[in-house]
Formats: sequence, C-alpha cells, structure tokens
Amino acid sequence: MSKLITTDDLDDLAVGAAILGTGGGGDPYIGKLMARAAIEAHGPVTLMALDELPDDFGIVACGAMGAPTILIEKIPSGEEMGRALDLYVRYTGRTLDALIPFEAGGINSTIPIMAAAKLGLPVIDADGMGRAFPQLEMETFNVYGVPAGPVAIADERGNTGIIEVKSAAKSEWLARGLTIRMGGQAYIANYGMDGATCRRVSVPGTMSLAFGIGRTVREAKAQHRDVLTSLIDFFAGTHYEEARIVASGKIVDVARGVKNGWSVGTVTIHPFQRGAEPVRIQIQNENLVAEQGDEVLAIVPDLICILDLDTGEAITTERLRYGQRVNVLAVRVPPIMRTPEALAVFGPKAFGLDQPYRPLGLVA
Amino acid sequence: MSKLITTDDLDDLAVGAAILGTGGGGDPYIGKLMARAAIEAHGPVTLMALDELPDDFGIVACGAMGAPTILIEKIPSGEEMGRALDLYVRYTGRTLDALIPFEAGGINSTIPIMAAAKLGLPVIDADGMGRAFPQLEMETFNVYGVPAGPVAIADERGNTGIIEVKSAAKSEWLARGLTIRMGGQAYIANYGMDGATCRRVSVPGTMSLAFGIGRTVREAKAQHRDVLTSLIDFFAGTHYEEARIVASGKIVDVARGVKNGWSVGTVTIHPFQRGAEPVRIQIQNENLVAEQGDEVLAIVPDLICILDLDTGEAITTERLRYGQRVNVLAVRVPPIMRTPEALAVFGPKAFGLDQPYRPLGLVA
Repeated sequence: MSKLITTDDLDDLAVGAAILGTGGGGDPYIGKLMARAAIEAHGPVTLMALDELPDDFGIVACGAMGAPTILIEKIPSGEEMGRALDLYVRYTGRTLDALIPFEAGGINSTIPIMAAAKLGLPVIDADGMGRAFPQLEMETFNVYGVPAGPVAIADERGNTGIIEVKSAAKSEWLARGLTIRMGGQAYIANYGMDGATCRRVSVPGTMSLAFGIGRTVREAKAQHRDVLTSLIDFFAGTHYEEARIVASGKIVDVARGVKNGWSVGTVTIHPFQRGAEPVRIQIQNENLVAEQGDEVLAIVPDLICILDLDTGEAITTERLRYGQRVNVLAVRVPPIMRTPEALAVFGPKAFGLDQPYRPLGLVA
Repeated sequence: MSKLITTDDLDDLAVGAAILGTGGGGDPYIGKLMARAAIEAHGPVTLMALDELPDDFGIVACGAMGAPTILIEKIPSGEEMGRALDLYVRYTGRTLDALIPFEAGGINSTIPIMAAAKLGLPVIDADGMGRAFPQLEMETFNVYGVPAGPVAIADERGNTGIIEVKSAAKSEWLARGLTIRMGGQAYIANYGMDGATCRRVSVPGTMSLAFGIGRTVREAKAQHRDVLTSLIDFFAGTHYEEARIVASGKIVDVARGVKNGWSVGTVTIHPFQRGAEPVRIQIQNENLVAEQGDEVLAIVPDLICILDLDTGEAITTERLRYGQRVNVLAVRVPPIMRTPEALAVFGPKAFGLDQPYRPLGLVA
C-alpha cells in the first residue's frame, strides 16, 4: 500500500536522513525546507514500495553532488534538480514515471521528494546507497549492472551538462570535475532504469527506514525513553538488524578541509570512560572508519553516526565542533550491500583503507 | 572559387598554422598526420570562402582544447573530433553543412580538415580567433554575438559531454574543467551558426593565410631568399598588413609549467645586439607580450611568433629550449580583432596584463 508524504512527515524524515547520512549527505535542514515548499505548492507525494513498481516504469535516480561544507553557504535555487531531470529526459528520450533517491541520507532523501512534488511523480521507497556515500559510482545500481551514464547535471545559475561515460568511476570523475567548477555543489540525474531492474538493484525500504528512525527519536523523547536504546531496538526490527554504541565521549579535535571537492578530515573523541584510548573517525564527506588504538570499532560500508549526547540527533561533518558530547552509533548494512561485488565498489579498499571489512556484530 | 585541400597542401598548412599559433595551438605536426590519413582515406576537402557561403548553411566550429605540452604525449585516437560533432548535431538537432576552425593556429587548423574529410563536408576559409588564443570565449564569434553553448566535448577514450552555459566565459570554465579531468586534452564542437552569421562574425581568409605563410617560407628557402623578409612582404599583401622582427637572439631561460590546464611560463631571450637588455615573453599557451626593459615590443592580440633563426619555422611553447637562436616576429591583427568589443574579450586586460594594447606599427 502506498503512503503519501505530507509536510507533517518531513521533520521525522530529516532526523532519519541525518542519521543515514553518517555525517555526510548534506544538511537535511535545507532539503526539508525545499521539500516543504514544494509539497505546500503542489500537494503530497506518493511513496511507492519496490514491490508495487510496474516492470515497465521509467525510473531515474537523482540528488545533489558536492561537499556538504559548501552546501550550507551555497543555497540551492530550487530549480536545478528539475533542470537536470528535464535535461536527462530530453537527452535520453526516456519516460519518467518515478524518481528514486540515489542516496538515502542527508539532503538527498528530501531533494527527490521536492522534485517529485513539482513533477507530480511518485518517489520510490528505496535508494542506491542504503546510506550516504561520497562518490557517484558507490551505488548498488552500479554494483548490480545499471550503467551510470548519461549523467545530467545542473547548477543554481542555469548552467547544465550531460556526460556520457565508459565506466561508473569515470561518471564520478567527470561529474565531480563539473561540480567543482559549478562552485562545489550541483544536482544530478542518472542511472535511468525500468521498474523490474530497479527492484533487483536497489536497497529496499530506505525512505521508510528514514521516516522510522525519525519517528523513533521523536517518540522516545516525548515518552522520556532513552533515544539510543529505542534506536537500537528499532534497527533490530529492520533489514539493517544490528546497531550498537561503539563510543561515548567529548570531541577534542576536528581536522577538516575541502579536498578534490569533498569534505575530508579526522575527528578525535575522548571517551568518558576513564583511561580509555581516544577514538578517531576518518571522514570523506561521510564517516569512514572509527578506531580506538589498533581496534576497528566500525568500518565502511557499515554506518558510523555521531549523535548529540542530549538530543540523539546526528551531527553532520560540517557541524562538528570541539567540546561536543556525543555517542557514536554504528549500524550494520543489509546483505545486498555486503556481497563481494558491493564491497569491491564501496568497501574499505575503495576508500584507500587497509583495514578489512568486518560486518558489525558478525564473527568473521 | 573554391579550392580543394589535398595532402600536398598539408606541409605548407602546418608551417603556417605554427606561425599563426604564436607559440600555442598545439604542435601542428600531429594534426598534419591526422589530416593526411583522413584525406588519403576519404579524398580532398573543399575550402569554401566566406563570400561563397549560402546564408542558410548550418555551421559548427570545432577543434582541440587543452595544454599543448600535454598533447605531445597524449596522442589523439582520431575519432574524438567526430564524436563531439556527432553529439553536437544529435543534441541540438542542427544540420551540419560545413565546419569552421574555432582557431587558426597549431593543431586547430588541421583538426577541422581531418573531421571534414571524414564527414564529406567543406571547411570554411575563416576562423574565430585569427590566430591561436588560450580560452574558448576569446572568439570573434563570441565578440559579435554567437552564443558559445551548447558545447560538445569528447576524449580519446569515448567519454563525452554536452554543456549548456549562461555565458561564453562559463563555457571556457566548465569545458576546461572537463578537459582537465579528461587528461588535459579534449575535442570540442560549439558556436553553431548559419552562413549569414558566419560571414559577419568570422576572421576571413585565415586558412588561405596559413597556406600562404607556409608557401612563402617554402619558396623563400627553395630560392635562397631571406625567409623573414619574404614573410614580412607576404603579410603586407594580406589584411594583417604589418609584420616586423622585434627581437633576435639566444634563448637563455625557459620557465614553464602546467597551471589550471594551460601551459604557462616566461621565456627570456638574450639579444645578439651587444649591450641590449634581455627580451622577456610571457606565455599562456600562446605568447602574450614581448618586453624589453620597460618597452612593450608587441602585445596580445597582435601575434608574437618565436621563429628558428635558421629555418624560419615557428617553435611552439612546449619545444622552447635553452640555447635556441631565434627571431621574434610580431604581426598586427586585422581590424575585426581590434575593435573595443574585441579587445574587451581578448586584449591585454583579458589576460590580466596591465600594459595597454598598441597595434603594431600604428601610432596610438
């Protein structure tokens, strides 16, 4: 049964999207405002489950590309996502029956809702990352055989581009080049596919997951229950299954910069537990690996979420500050994201990390 | 009356194109080989004068973009120019009746001939720069009102792009970004226009000019006449009119690098004349300004050509070496390139130079 996304759902979605953003994906607040304005103007958006999807539906993935640190000062005009989709359709001649987020985190959970409201299209309850990742080829769409090109790209000033590529890695390389020259933030549409393919290659239920995470946080607060315990219980009932707190402490150092169009850096957390070694988290837009001494606490593609100790809400990379008190929540990704093919594209090695992937809570 | 370009013409063209390249435009040798192979396979190419051009002809400008220093090691496959043109036509829906070089120097005199041979189209005896310039907006097409976009771009590996832009400067910025990510050398098609427009906005006769320069050098050598005097006499009979030797000496220093996708640097020449101050030439792909102490000997858009003392042939930026004996030949550009509108786009200020433009041989 389809669900209608109304403005009432957007607060929950933003909270959930920030957690699935694992530090990256862009501040969901901006995306929430854009989605709210679009729903107010054009009405609610249908959220369509993968198993409702007609085989011959024309589907295109969409979202924002860039460095989250730039997004907070380079505000979208609201027209760019529609321009990229329009260009994609015009160039490929495909029909557009539904949109799918290419990423289930940060601003990219809400950007497709905004675009869908304006176009009168449904949004699919799934995505291509199951979280946020920093690179365009890090998609289950790519892992399971959907070509990454053509890629349509648009900025907030009306400049656009279409790229045709020989590999998904090249789509990242060339679209990133344009994104950088568009000022570090742009909007893209790609991975066109039909409904039957979409069912096979997508991480299912991730929009519902984001709504559920947000609802869990909200209800726990209203009922004065512990937010983290509630979240861990919530994940246990989903296909993500396993979530744990891997560190609690105070942020004592944030080293952060923009490199090659990404926000990169390291955050150091001094645990509350007396005598415990500091926890270091490496960042490339998203949190990649959490380590304590020689021990890997959690590693990509599993989610590493830095949550405010008081509110339980995610702190995105660009908002990390010295002195913040935080919990670090790790979440295991579902099986479709843990296959050897998937790990080759977005496992530790794909980020230049030497540590092997060990799924959270599973013995190797 | 149309002329047919055969393989016999290509040696003259390469020599002329190197001089019009004013140090840049890419080594014409590679372009000559590509044009030769295409003419051998597909037959000679018609060179069409501007005044023969039907008003409703569909015309597209084309050529290579990148750093000449990279071109000599990153050899074209020969297919990329055709791919960019094909993409341009497919995307815009325009008809393609003739090609025009966007630049009359270096590899970009011969690349359009190669593409025209393969497509069975004429090449127009004109261009948009009247020489070589390092940036895509530095075109009389742009100066006199033809939109720079869309721009089609292709690399030698089969990756392509189409860019739509709000300004000619943005076409340079975004296409350069893609060119850099394509490895520093790519092939572009843009400035689509009709025949009537083309007649109004182009620098006329520049292909014939290149042939004439090459023929002049060849005949002077065969008849043991002085190459430079012959060249100066030849230019006097064209719409370029004024050419002079502004320096003769030995290269004593070459500082050169690749920056933002261009070859940039400075060459220092120690004049043969005893006690004369050294002559410095600033480079951004092309030679921009020749100075001796406080005196400006020649400045962009006028041509500054570094010629081998013995052969009279141009030495491109990437081939400059310590110890070379050279003449520096300056040539005044025709009136269409000296209007205030033109100088705003490719005069000294457009290159960040403080010195004012003084047309060679004309009192200010």
